[in-house]
Amino acid sequence: MSRVRNAALKSKIMSAQDAAALIPANSTVGMSGFTGSGYPKVVPIALAERIEAEHAAGNPFKLKVWTGASTGPELDGALAKADGIEFRLPYNSDPIAREKINKGEMEYLDMHLSQVAPVAWQGFLGPLETAVVEVSGIREDGALIPSSSIGNNKTWLDRADRIILEVNSWQNAALEGMHDIYYGTALPPARVPIPLTKPTDLIGETVFRVDPSKIAAIVETDSPDRNLPFAAPDASATAIAGHLIEFLQHEVKLGRLPAHLLPLQSGVGNVANAVLAGLQNSPFENLTAYTEVLQDGMLDLLDSGKLTVASATAFSLSPEAAADLNSRMEQFRGKIILRPQEISNHPEIIRRLGCIAMNGLIEADIYGNVNSTHVMGSRIQNGIGGSGDFARNAYISCFVTPSTAKGGKISAIVPMASHVDHITQDVQVIVTEQGLADLRGLSPKQRAQVIIANCAHPDYRDALKDYYARALKGSYGLQSPHLLTEALSWHQRFIETGSMKA
Amino acid sequence: MSRVRNAALKSKIMSAQDAAALIPANSTVGMSGFTGSGYPKVVPIALAERIEAEHAAGNPFKLKVWTGASTGPELDGALAKADGIEFRLPYNSDPIAREKINKGEMEYLDMHLSQVAPVAWQGFLGPLETAVVEVSGIREDGALIPSSSIGNNKTWLDRADRIILEVNSWQNAALEGMHDIYYGTALPPARVPIPLTKPTDLIGETVFRVDPSKIAAIVETDSPDRNLPFAAPDASATAIAGHLIEFLQHEVKLGRLPAHLLPLQSGVGNVANAVLAGLQNSPFENLTAYTEVLQDGMLDLLDSGKLTVASATAFSLSPEAAADLNSRMEQFRGKIILRPQEISNHPEIIRRLGCIAMNGLIEADIYGNVNSTHVMGSRIQNGIGGSGDFARNAYISCFVTPSTAKGGKISAIVPMASHVDHITQDVQVIVTEQGLADLRGLSPKQRAQVIIANCAHPDYRDALKDYYARALKGSYGLQSPHLLTEALSWHQRFIETGSMKA
Repeated sequence: MSRVRNAALKSKIMSAQDAAALIPANSTVGMSGFTGSGYPKVVPIALAERIEAEHAAGNPFKLKVWTGASTGPELDGALAKADGIEFRLPYNSDPIAREKINKGEMEYLDMHLSQVAPVAWQGFLGPLETAVVEVSGIREDGALIPSSSIGNNKTWLDRADRIILEVNSWQNAALEGMHDIYYGTALPPARVPIPLTKPTDLIGETVFRVDPSKIAAIVETDSPDRNLPFAAPDASATAIAGHLIEFLQHEVKLGRLPAHLLPLQSGVGNVANAVLAGLQNSPFENLTAYTEVLQDGMLDLLDSGKLTVASATAFSLSPEAAADLNSRMEQFRGKIILRPQEISNHPEIIRRLGCIAMNGLIEADIYGNVNSTHVMGSRIQNGIGGSGDFARNAYISCFVTPSTAKGGKISAIVPMASHVDHITQDVQVIVTEQGLADLRGLSPKQRAQVIIANCAHPDYRDALKDYYARALKGSYGLQSPHLLTEALSWHQRFIETGSMKA
Repeated sequence: MSRVRNAALKSKIMSAQDAAALIPANSTVGMSGFTGSGYPKVVPIALAERIEAEHAAGNPFKLKVWTGASTGPELDGALAKADGIEFRLPYNSDPIAREKINKGEMEYLDMHLSQVAPVAWQGFLGPLETAVVEVSGIREDGALIPSSSIGNNKTWLDRADRIILEVNSWQNAALEGMHDIYYGTALPPARVPIPLTKPTDLIGETVFRVDPSKIAAIVETDSPDRNLPFAAPDASATAIAGHLIEFLQHEVKLGRLPAHLLPLQSGVGNVANAVLAGLQNSPFENLTAYTEVLQDGMLDLLDSGKLTVASATAFSLSPEAAADLNSRMEQFRGKIILRPQEISNHPEIIRRLGCIAMNGLIEADIYGNVNSTHVMGSRIQNGIGGSGDFARNAYISCFVTPSTAKGGKISAIVPMASHVDHITQDVQVIVTEQGLADLRGLSPKQRAQVIIANCAHPDYRDALKDYYARALKGSYGLQSPHLLTEALSWHQRFIETGSMKA
């Protein structure tokens, strides 16, 4: 049975090529997609082919591309390879696009993910000519059943002049009803409190409303989401998870956290997944999650009953876990809620719920300033994503990382962060496999001692101690002592020699 | 007539010396005070005398001091001079305390002002033995009438084991009824939406409730608040105000801001005050303010009717304006509302109202990272204060500064910020007397060009262009190009030569 259940809209079904031909050259396109979930799979490829043909014919054709967050290779990879992206927001993790950005061939605006939809309404980003959105079906009444991510789809559908839909029958039909699309946002002065006080609260509708006259094309697909596989937790990730869980148990024991903790937020990646695996084997029960993405580890926690509900804006599952979920989606009804990213990441909600935030980092300095985005201060890795939304508003903001990278040639703890995404005020706990630094209530100098002692790798610890001791003697001021001629020397040494080691 | 209208509490009236004697050595004290308003004026001085005597006798006596924000010389100055402060939060602008901090003789935790009260409840800061709070009176029923600042007083009164009150009859009796103390906050999971949707909304009570058995002492005073005088706007400040107001008019014209703008937030200082003076002469009408402090300029705007209401947590008036306000407080009833700082600075409210934030800075780099706190990366000036609460959550986050400082020897625009308080995502507009950079929707490289061209002083512009051009060639990555061996060289040159100029 066709997923396009509205009779009138069946007439809009066409090929990906015909749909891609509707997108104006040098315009702005708002696409669905949040991590490797729910992004359009065939129209962007057809669009990339069209762009390559135009370029071959000597015609300029570059787009501004807005999405939810990262997407799959069929979108960012294909369009970047075709040199079809002039400007990209709000997040990228595609290797081809990353390379173009770091060569200065593509402009990239790295944004707080909560702010994308509100900012799109503010107007200064300019018009949005086209939305290309994957859905899992179209209801009889024309309402759109969302796919495996929500992201900014509501906003793109509302804002765009024309809509191209990909209806993906690979997505489980049981997704219908698992979404909560809140239609109560507005621009100030008309904003009102968002009526969500628990991760389980349903405050919206299960579908996107859309003006059918704006739907220019519907393309039917049967294509899997493509997320990266997770590595099994290694010794380092397991140690990090152990330190963090011990800390949480300690906080409960002292009466500073409820027995069932507070809603968990977890970033993407192997270390984050290891922490979730660690919770599986912990004594905690009846946990909840209010987070951005649902990884493999959260699915396991839901399965075991350790986690009672997970609210997110997208799945971010390994191919195996995605296939598994797809085979029994019905079991998760009522336990998984997907929301627009302006709600999943909303500072108002994160602060109200008191989320426990756990995010990765590239480096932290001895005072606990965190760099989440720029390798050696200039080269973008992915982007800030939702880490700023969660870190600043969390009840406890934790950052987790192995203490070294690149086989020990990079220390994750450095004298001065070469770029700052999270200021000391927003970084309360840092965890490496070496140990945990509880920085709450400490002055910068007190933080430095704990971070160096508890988190730095032994290969770098003495050099950090030495830097800090000399900074205490030679710094201009002693609130956050630094020697400016040396502060970034570890990064420079890496650039020159391939290692931060002296 | 005594301001202590409760009969039973009259028995607690005593001298400042007797009250100060009740404070345990080496304990934590929560004091009132937010800028030079509403801080206790005599107990801290008596306490400082006691500390000096104890030190002379060879006895250790140091306190942890918590306040709302900065205070007056009778508090921070006196206690710092007596070497009586071991640890200070959340903000300081006292010159004696600043010097001790920058010599490494006092630990200082510089906090987001919205987070002080919630964090005090979280428990990890430890117990609060004593609250020393100025009030303007005590009602017959024992309720406390707040003074010229609210700050964290509600929290100190609720959290402390013992309470010492200063009842200051210098404060106008007409203050009674101008406060709105919200008692609906809680720790998660019990947090609920804060029911404030307009700056005029009253959501609380006009007084502090307090357990009378905790009141250990009442000291009667008649002492003026002490804020610094404002300088009359100079040509630079007037030019900054002109650029910003032109921008706001432009936004209204394009339909991107309502005709009456959105609630204004303005930091403290001469430049901020100049912007308010500029608004006085602008065509804007029916403005509102949802801000931290009420400066002279806002009082003028209220007087002229340009501003219909101002919500804040404190007055921050010059001695002349304070005397003027005191002489006719009654006229401002209903136009001025003072709230706890956890509400005046609450991210939930700031985002909902869509405040237009205007804050000062020490330096911004070419990408628009802003340093608000650390001179030359290590020496604390004051603190982040509420700038992070407002900048991240504002509808438009503006930073205003003269393009140079110290007679031209310091450029406010530098290659790389030597400390970061506000990341590029939270800095949308930068204004100097040279011009305005509208950075919204721009990638880092696009931002650099606008900032250098529009904001940098001509004396430094070519050097910034040169740095940026060479960074484009020699940087490790080109998302935010930098040359790490040079990025902080302007600061190092200032430390070595007293000027950033080559």
